[in-house]
Formats: sequence, structure tokens, C-alpha cells
Amino acid sequence: MPTLSMFMDVPLVHKLEGSLLKAYKQDDYPNKIFLAYKVCMTNEGHPWVSLVVQKARLQISQDPSLNYEYLPTVGMKSFIQASLELLFGKHSQAIVENRVGGVHTVGDSGAFQLGVQFLRAWHKDARTVYIISSQKELHGLIFQDMGFTVYEYSIWDPKKLCMDPNILLNAVEQIPRGCVLVIGNIIDCKLTPSEWAKLMSMIKSKQIFPFFDIPCQGLYTSDLEEDTRILQYFVSQGVEFFCSQSLSKNFGIYDEGVGILVVVAVNNQQLLCVLSQLMRLAQALWLNPPNTGARIITSILCNPALLGEWKQSLKEVVEKATLTKEKQVEYLVRKKHIYIPRNSQINFSCVNANNIHYITESINEAVLFTEGSEKCLPKETNP
Amino acid sequence: MPTLSMFMDVPLVHKLEGSLLKAYKQDDYPNKIFLAYKVCMTNEGHPWVSLVVQKARLQISQDPSLNYEYLPTVGMKSFIQASLELLFGKHSQAIVENRVGGVHTVGDSGAFQLGVQFLRAWHKDARTVYIISSQKELHGLIFQDMGFTVYEYSIWDPKKLCMDPNILLNAVEQIPRGCVLVIGNIIDCKLTPSEWAKLMSMIKSKQIFPFFDIPCQGLYTSDLEEDTRILQYFVSQGVEFFCSQSLSKNFGIYDEGVGILVVVAVNNQQLLCVLSQLMRLAQALWLNPPNTGARIITSILCNPALLGEWKQSLKEVVEKATLTKEKQVEYLVRKKHIYIPRNSQINFSCVNANNIHYITESINEAVLFTEGSEKCLPKETNP
Repeated sequence: MPTLSMFMDVPLVHKLEGSLLKAYKQDDYPNKIFLAYKVCMTNEGHPWVSLVVQKARLQISQDPSLNYEYLPTVGMKSFIQASLELLFGKHSQAIVENRVGGVHTVGDSGAFQLGVQFLRAWHKDARTVYIISSQKELHGLIFQDMGFTVYEYSIWDPKKLCMDPNILLNAVEQIPRGCVLVIGNIIDCKLTPSEWAKLMSMIKSKQIFPFFDIPCQGLYTSDLEEDTRILQYFVSQGVEFFCSQSLSKNFGIYDEGVGILVVVAVNNQQLLCVLSQLMRLAQALWLNPPNTGARIITSILCNPALLGEWKQSLKEVVEKATLTKEKQVEYLVRKKHIYIPRNSQINFSCVNANNIHYITESINEAVLFTEGSEKCLPKETNP
Repeated sequence: MPTLSMFMDVPLVHKLEGSLLKAYKQDDYPNKIFLAYKVCMTNEGHPWVSLVVQKARLQISQDPSLNYEYLPTVGMKSFIQASLELLFGKHSQAIVENRVGGVHTVGDSGAFQLGVQFLRAWHKDARTVYIISSQKELHGLIFQDMGFTVYEYSIWDPKKLCMDPNILLNAVEQIPRGCVLVIGNIIDCKLTPSEWAKLMSMIKSKQIFPFFDIPCQGLYTSDLEEDTRILQYFVSQGVEFFCSQSLSKNFGIYDEGVGILVVVAVNNQQLLCVLSQLMRLAQALWLNPPNTGARIITSILCNPALLGEWKQSLKEVVEKATLTKEKQVEYLVRKKHIYIPRNSQINFSCVNANNIHYITESINEAVLFTEGSEKCLPKETNP
């Protein structure tokens, strides 16, 4: 047997994303805690799943009329249609004008992979990407791997503890002509009408190509329309863009990779050209996207009763998280003099060796106090 | 609204693969027929599904202990383990020596996409790919898109109406050093021990990298081991290779994209390096592979009763197809003087304007005759 390997020069990749979760799962310590989940967690420490999903799953598995043939490369048509109506609203201008479409992808990573491949092939002048978000995004890696230069802007103001429209506008002002702008979750960034107009004017005049990331519509404010208002605005302004729409987190189907690369074009003719090129690329990537997640979601979105249940479950999960947090945040500010924004996004670089002990004890107190009214209010403490 | 589109230079892709199926599905003619399916079809004209899959699907949907969290990038571990044991046998040398592994992919296209990306990055001297198969393979496109030069060899001898070992050996003889050799379904190509030795010697001395394609283990001969004997031989010879293992067709889960990119290395250390690089690439492709198909297959492979049912269903579908065909083939040769190989792979270029009428009428007769014994034997006809 030869000992000389063809793979001799292949080094081990040491820092794989996800290795934290792996280490956590391999840890036998009974009280282990994982704080890096990117999904809504229940009180029992499980990822949140909308109950209506379980119902739909059971219905599907008992339906003898369903077939399990390959989906076409574009994906499940009814799923794409229902998801686009969810994203833009049924009466959206772009849907009525038949200039919005999508390709069913394997999750949001798949949507970015597909979109970036298209931009590399057909938007050749743009080799620079700016990513604007409240947090570090993974998608930058996909652009980098395909030869783009990536710059990331956080629009979080660590002093004011909120997203700052000025940081956003300044960032876009500095962006050169013709580049790609990835816009992550900026729903908490409240722009005035004149600020919106300024942003749009820069994007149009510099021919910046927007690539939105909508990973969990409905889980920001529980208002499905509110969570995608920025898309409606861009559509109304006749801007062309891509959007990665993921439906894994807001249904709680994390393991099915349910995504769509959404395309908004100026007219139907351009749209069809772009979709045809995307399908050509998707053929090489996975040929046929997976079905289960799309089937579950479609059966919910297209059934008024199930749709109502799903919307209600979104309201409950967001409300519960907000209620719990609001009480705790209020307690921390009023009783413990620890100032945290209402969305509870803490900048951890404000935590240091001098204050960490006081902060953690206070959070503990806040949680204990807000757990139930049977607990008496602990005495006030001053730092 | 601007009428100038950023997508102005993007042309429409006209000839998309799958457009034939699309045209067929849109055709309203009641007696329409689609002869281009690449999967086993039932008598009712539906893609074959192993009945045990339906049972597993129902069990899974009713199991409250299951979670629907993201799979790790490598995929479902138990699925990979069970599938590798299926491919190589539980007691395979490579499994015992811990030098075989795999990454769970979105179908076989995903497996090729991932493997080709790896070869582009880490097997830089190889920019030429030879594809050996009994039929035209789609995977060549994936290599082409990534800058490889692709040559395809059919080892089908249209005169002898069988796969010819000599064509295979001559092809490999002509292949230059250090290239990639994709080996599709060559199970019907019967090599003698000395021919096997000659093939192996050329592959080793020219450092050819084999990339196997096993799209439907168990559906060739219904003997799971027999269908992958070539892999066992390569493992026993200590050769490193990739293999795309698809489990969609042999379970009848066409819509879930269930595949594995299998890696066989000379030792565990090299294997881990290769797997880590593959996971790095898979992160950008889909981040987490879809779960449903893998879960169904694992629940069958790891349950002796369900495994038995699945094996039985494979036997039945292959036997039925073979029995039907064998009777019809025999009828055509003996009664109609039309010579067709036992595997019923007809070379359609032998069909011409002069003989097509006689051939189609004879096939019709053969089918009618072999349908049941209550039908009387039609009188013999000479051409």
C-alpha cells in the first residue's frame, strides 16, 4: 500500500465556524450553557418551533396524494410565489408588474452563494462589497472567496447604544460608485423621510447594487409588514436589487435550509433573463433544491387557518421575549443604574474587570425579581 | 422610475436542462408520454418509492423527541456513518483503518460541486478531466464551469451492444498523467482479473485521481455489495479517491437531495485535513445540509426490520423490471428477429426510417404477449 498521499499538501483547517457548538455538544458538564445560538430559544432551552409547523408536518406525512419527484431547478413554484407575497405584500407594485421573482435555494447561505456567483459573472465592474449591519455577518466570506474585496460597517453606536442613521448615511456616502451594498438587519435604525430620500438619492446616483438579507421576517417586531418595510420602499423607488429571504428561523425549521434568492428587476423581460442565468448556476450547485421545508411553509402560507396560527405564534414568541426583557431592562436601569437599550443589545466591550461582578449580580437579581410577583422586591443597591 | 436596468447585458439562457420535463408537464394532451425520466418508474407511471420510506416518514413526523436544529456543516453524523457502511460494507478495510469519511451534500450535484471546488484548490496540476460512463453525464458541466477541460468516453460498443473492457482500457491508456478520472456506472463492464490489474497499474503509475459516481446503489443488480464492488477493489489497492454517493434514487426520495461526498485517503490524518477543507467550502455553499432525507434514510439503515424491508423492495423493483424486460427481449429476438442486449439498452441510431415501423410494432406485440398468459401467442412474423 502506498504511503504517499495525493492530499499531502492539504493542511487542516483549524478554526471552523461552528466549532464552538461542537465543543459545547461534546462537553459533559451538566450545567453547560451555550450563548451563541442565532435563533429564538424557548424557556426550556430549545430552539423555538412554531406549533403549526408540527401540524403541517403530520398532515404532509399522511397525505397519499403527494409525490416525491425532483423539484425543478428553480424550486417549488407555489412556495416561491407565497414567499414573495409574504415578503412584499400581495398587492406589491413589483408583483403586480411581474418584475419580481426568485430561485428556491438551500438556505440563506445558498441564496448568497447563488447571488454572488451571478454578480461575479454579470456585474463585472463591481468587485467591492460593503456590508452594513448591526452585527458581523457571515456572508462576507462568500464574497471574499469569489474575489470580492469586502468592507464591513457596523451602524451600532456604542455610546448611544442604538443604530445611528448618521453612521449609515456617512457610510453610504463613502461607498464608491457601482459597488454592491449588503444591507442586513437595520430595522431598528429609524430614518426620517428626508434621511430616506438622501439614502435613496446616493444609491441611485452612484448605481449601488443593494443585496438585502432578510433572515427572520416577523421575528423583529412580530409585524410581518413592518419587518420588510425597507424592501417596499426600495421597490416603490424602482430600484433593482437582490434579497436573500430565509424562512428557517421564522417557522422554526432550522434543519431544512429553506431560502429564496429574490430578484427585483425594472421589468419582466430583464427578470426572466436574470432568473434563467441563476437557474444555470443553481444546476451546478445542487440541481434540485430540497422539498420538505418548502412544502411545510407553503402548506401554512396558503391555508388561511394555518397562516393565522403561524402569525399568532410569531406574536407570542416576540411578545414574550419583549415583555421579559422590558421588565428586566427596566429593573436594571431603575434599580441598579445599569443602562441597557430596550432591545437589550449590550455592547460587551463596555463590560470590564471592574464592573463585571456588579453587572452579573444585577442581571441575576433582575431575572429573579421579574420571574413572578410572588417574589418580594429585593432591597435597592447602589453601586 | 428608471428604465435603464443594471441587468441590461444579461442574456436569456435558452436551453435549460429540464425544459423537456417542463414542456411535458405543461402539455394538456391526455396521452402524453415522458421517456426521459432518469429514475425507476412504476407501472402506474410514477417514480418508484420504497414503501418503507413512507413508514419511516410517518414515524418521524410523530416523534416528539426529535429536534429540528441546524445540522452541522459536515451533515448528520449517523447518516454519513450508516451510508459509508452501506457503500463499503461494515467491515471494510478503509472503515476499520479510519481513513474513509464523507461530507453530507445536497444531492449528487452538490457532491460534485464540492469535490470539484476542492480539486480546483488543492489538486492544481490536474486541469483535465476524463469522464468514463455508459451514457452522457451532467457532471462534466460542473468541471467545465470551474475551468477544467473535459473529455468524455463512452465505453458502449454499438456493434456488440455491450460495454467493452477494451474500450475502457484503451481510454485509460490514453489519459495523461495526474488528471482526474470520473467513473460512472460501469457495472456491466465485465473485466477479467488481469484486465483489472492492468487498469489499476495504469491508474497508479500515472497518478490518476478517480472520482466515482454511485447514483443508485442497489438498483443495478439489487445486490448492494455487487453494485459497489469496484469501490471495494480500489480500497483494497490503497488508492485514494472521491465518490459521489446519492441516496435519492434507491430510496425513492427524489426531492430531498440526499448525497455524500465520500473521501478515501491513505490514512486518518490526511482524511481529516481533506474533510476540514471540504467543510470550509460547504460553509459557503449551503452552510447546513437539509435534514429530512438523511433522517429518513438513517432511520431505515439503522433499524434491522426496516433495513430488511428496504432491501426486499429493491429486489422487487429490480426483479420486476428485469423479468418484464427479459421476457420481452427474448420474444423480440426469438420471434421477431430483433436483437437487443439483455439490459435492453438500445442504440437508437440503429433505428431508421426503413425499420422503425417494424420495430415499434414488434415491441408492441412483445409487450402484449408478455403481459399475461391468458393472451394467446400471436402468429410468427418474418421481416
